[in-house]
Amino acid sequence: MTYELYYWDGIPGRGEFVRLALEEARADYREMGKGEAGTEAITDFLGDEAGPYAPFAPPFLKHGDIIVSHVANILDYLGGRHGLAPEGEQERLFARGLQLTLTDFVAEAHDTHHPLGVDDYYENQKTEAKRRSQAFIDSRIPKFLGYFERVLAKNPSSGGFIVGSHLTTVDLSLFHVLDGLRYAFPRATSNFEKRYPGLMALHKSVGVRPNIAAYLTSERRLDFNESDVFRHYPELDQDPA
Amino acid sequence: MTYELYYWDGIPGRGEFVRLALEEARADYREMGKGEAGTEAITDFLGDEAGPYAPFAPPFLKHGDIIVSHVANILDYLGGRHGLAPEGEQERLFARGLQLTLTDFVAEAHDTHHPLGVDDYYENQKTEAKRRSQAFIDSRIPKFLGYFERVLAKNPSSGGFIVGSHLTTVDLSLFHVLDGLRYAFPRATSNFEKRYPGLMALHKSVGVRPNIAAYLTSERRLDFNESDVFRHYPELDQDPA
Repeated sequence: MTYELYYWDGIPGRGEFVRLALEEARADYREMGKGEAGTEAITDFLGDEAGPYAPFAPPFLKHGDIIVSHVANILDYLGGRHGLAPEGEQERLFARGLQLTLTDFVAEAHDTHHPLGVDDYYENQKTEAKRRSQAFIDSRIPKFLGYFERVLAKNPSSGGFIVGSHLTTVDLSLFHVLDGLRYAFPRATSNFEKRYPGLMALHKSVGVRPNIAAYLTSERRLDFNESDVFRHYPELDQDPA
Repeated sequence: MTYELYYWDGIPGRGEFVRLALEEARADYREMGKGEAGTEAITDFLGDEAGPYAPFAPPFLKHGDIIVSHVANILDYLGGRHGLAPEGEQERLFARGLQLTLTDFVAEAHDTHHPLGVDDYYENQKTEAKRRSQAFIDSRIPKFLGYFERVLAKNPSSGGFIVGSHLTTVDLSLFHVLDGLRYAFPRATSNFEKRYPGLMALHKSVGVRPNIAAYLTSERRLDFNESDVFRHYPELDQDPA
């Protein structure tokens, strides 16, 4: 059954975490948010069309009669269906916790350019964005990525995955977060190879997986840009802590 | 088997969402974060003690050998074990989406007093906190609570619950979020009875449930305070939009 992915057109955004899972699984899916008609389809869905199960915001997935919203929830759903979740109870619970930690990290990455809220333009909060970005680079990136690097080192299974002995949606999401950070903050991330060797090896191994590599060079893959979660504003970047 | 709840001492915080579920379920649980020894127990756990499954941050729960972290993940675990989750697949997935939407809302409530980041004092970001609080009150509270009010109205099951026909952890969490908002912003929330009658009725019905009512008047219940997620700074409050 075809998955229908609803996400805003033109940005990788939070939809990209879902796309990477669908692409790795070679799942049959359709982008429902393309063009003006797509935007309308999304807003209709957020309104009355979903009936009692209307999501708060994209991304959300429709799969037959089932509607699933929120990245971590969607990935857990897909992970269980396509062998992209760990098997044991503890590892599955741990993978969910890791995914939710990534959710928080991504929200903080977004807030670097919108610290005063999403309803006002970046241009009206540039000074504050600079302060928030400094804190993000100096202390939040090291806190989050230091944590993930330790988790990776402590994984008792071999294979270089963040949890368990095979690829999960958490590895795919880490891949995208690392890409996003390097796009947004090329200076601040220039020490990543040295500081987070395990994560960077994981990033490399994900990027060369056949299904992911094929996707990355396809026209389905969208470029990062300044309407997105990860934005490159050179004035917010600085050398690493 | 006794649940062991690890959370910072002295604040309801994000631990409160877990406590409400444990209390409603009359589950046997122990607070592990009390006093200096408790703080040390938490930091030990975040370090090496949890082995490969170290959480990123509290709250987390230990249940026998199982470790579960992150509020939404913990509540899903408890909900499934204590009849506080919906039964059908769509409703269960929807409940998870609602809980994650509350996670985002709580993070935004926190950012009203720390828009530039958690590593600097409130006193050093008061002007920015005022701007972020204005946006939160004018547009984010109406957006989130308007959504939950609509979801409640559209629930095809009777009983006044947010999803399905019986109480879930999402109802308990909504109860706490409404309390937190009213504590932090008494002026901005003064129209809640009128504007969100369904949610306020839900709030009332949760508060008089025997197990919850007993908990609220017990000494286990902690007061809101200004070291917490929901803080009452009168200068950040204003009349509702």
